[in-house]
Amino acid sequence: MSEHIVKSYDRDLEALGRRISEMGGVAEKMLAEAMDALSMLDVDLAQRVVASDARLDILQREIEENAVLTIARRQPLAVDLRECIAAIRISGDIERIGDLAKNIAKRTLKIATEARLPRAIVGLRSMHEVAATQLKDALDAYALRDVERARAVWENDADLDALEDSVFRDLLTFMMEDPRNISFCTHLLFCSKNLERIGDHTTNISETVVYLATGESLPMERPKSRIGLRGSEQDVAQ
Amino acid sequence: MSEHIVKSYDRDLEALGRRISEMGGVAEKMLAEAMDALSMLDVDLAQRVVASDARLDILQREIEENAVLTIARRQPLAVDLRECIAAIRISGDIERIGDLAKNIAKRTLKIATEARLPRAIVGLRSMHEVAATQLKDALDAYALRDVERARAVWENDADLDALEDSVFRDLLTFMMEDPRNISFCTHLLFCSKNLERIGDHTTNISETVVYLATGESLPMERPKSRIGLRGSEQDVAQ
Repeated sequence: MSEHIVKSYDRDLEALGRRISEMGGVAEKMLAEAMDALSMLDVDLAQRVVASDARLDILQREIEENAVLTIARRQPLAVDLRECIAAIRISGDIERIGDLAKNIAKRTLKIATEARLPRAIVGLRSMHEVAATQLKDALDAYALRDVERARAVWENDADLDALEDSVFRDLLTFMMEDPRNISFCTHLLFCSKNLERIGDHTTNISETVVYLATGESLPMERPKSRIGLRGSEQDVAQ
Repeated sequence: MSEHIVKSYDRDLEALGRRISEMGGVAEKMLAEAMDALSMLDVDLAQRVVASDARLDILQREIEENAVLTIARRQPLAVDLRECIAAIRISGDIERIGDLAKNIAKRTLKIATEARLPRAIVGLRSMHEVAATQLKDALDAYALRDVERARAVWENDADLDALEDSVFRDLLTFMMEDPRNISFCTHLLFCSKNLERIGDHTTNISETVVYLATGESLPMERPKSRIGLRGSEQDVAQ
């Protein structure tokens, strides 16, 4: 390939990387704001989160189209082909993370007028802390092509699953204590499932980083929790 | 292109189409069996559904790899490029449908030993009827490149959303009637959300068929229900 073509190809890849970085920033902000909206039952903030999802959809479509055009035009091999495939996969996962954050915001709109139970949200905030850290680490691992950090994200996902089991049991208990909590807690159950699914997509991103850097896939089975909270819900994912 | 290359290219596309058809068959069977297992609380059947998901994961990975290699090798344009992109997208949606059917089977394993409430499952069976018909129509629309059938699937998805709202309200009512129903009905709430999500992925397939046949994307906003059941849950998706 001539130097000119190589440079133009590098520019294609750089543009993909920049767009993914922008998507990651939007998704992180959506997640943080959706959880703030839920904690404070802030309807205005929840509506802003819902509105910001459109940007992610547009970016994902652009990344997918540009990655495919790059494959078709440049016929890349090995690591360069993996760059394009990774861009398609990661943009898909970030788009889903945005959807799930949007769902938390939409739940906030539903429960804003219901009887409140602040202690029911405590466990969700713990889940959010883990999910937000994991997402940041996965996006950093992609930006830096840092395989070790990506593997750590992959291993830590079990902690989020364990927290979700704990939240699940707590919410069921609140519902059994007082039937007036049932509707509120049911919406929170779905929020907790959304956070757990955000963790799954974050783990997908870390798997893609390993694939990108090494050409290898991680084994399908993810590690079980190290912190020993997992109970009857162990294998149930939404 | 020489005739030889064209034929070999057609064989690539045919192979992709055959694998997607196989994936669709596996996913349809998983969904039907997962709902049978749930209705009869049949643990053995549920375990078989869980086990069959691995086949979908393998097929999806193969389709993705082969589609990308076809794009890199043949540099297709227009409709041929869309064939490859459609294969990647549709295999991703079918894989997710299999995951969601597997989740229903896993819920069955959890609730098999709990107090039963047969009338709570009636609404889920109605949802399943709609979801299974929609899935069959979407897969047929892909196999026949039938844009009209694809558009009909896209328009009918609102019916499934409306049914989910109805199931949501019924399950909440059962929980409020008797706290001993809370755990059982909570698992069914997630099953109902899984069926609704299967409808979303089925709608994605129909959107991809329209894109494949026409090069156009359907508008992002899907139609609201024609059957008027949608209430407070209207905009909440998991």
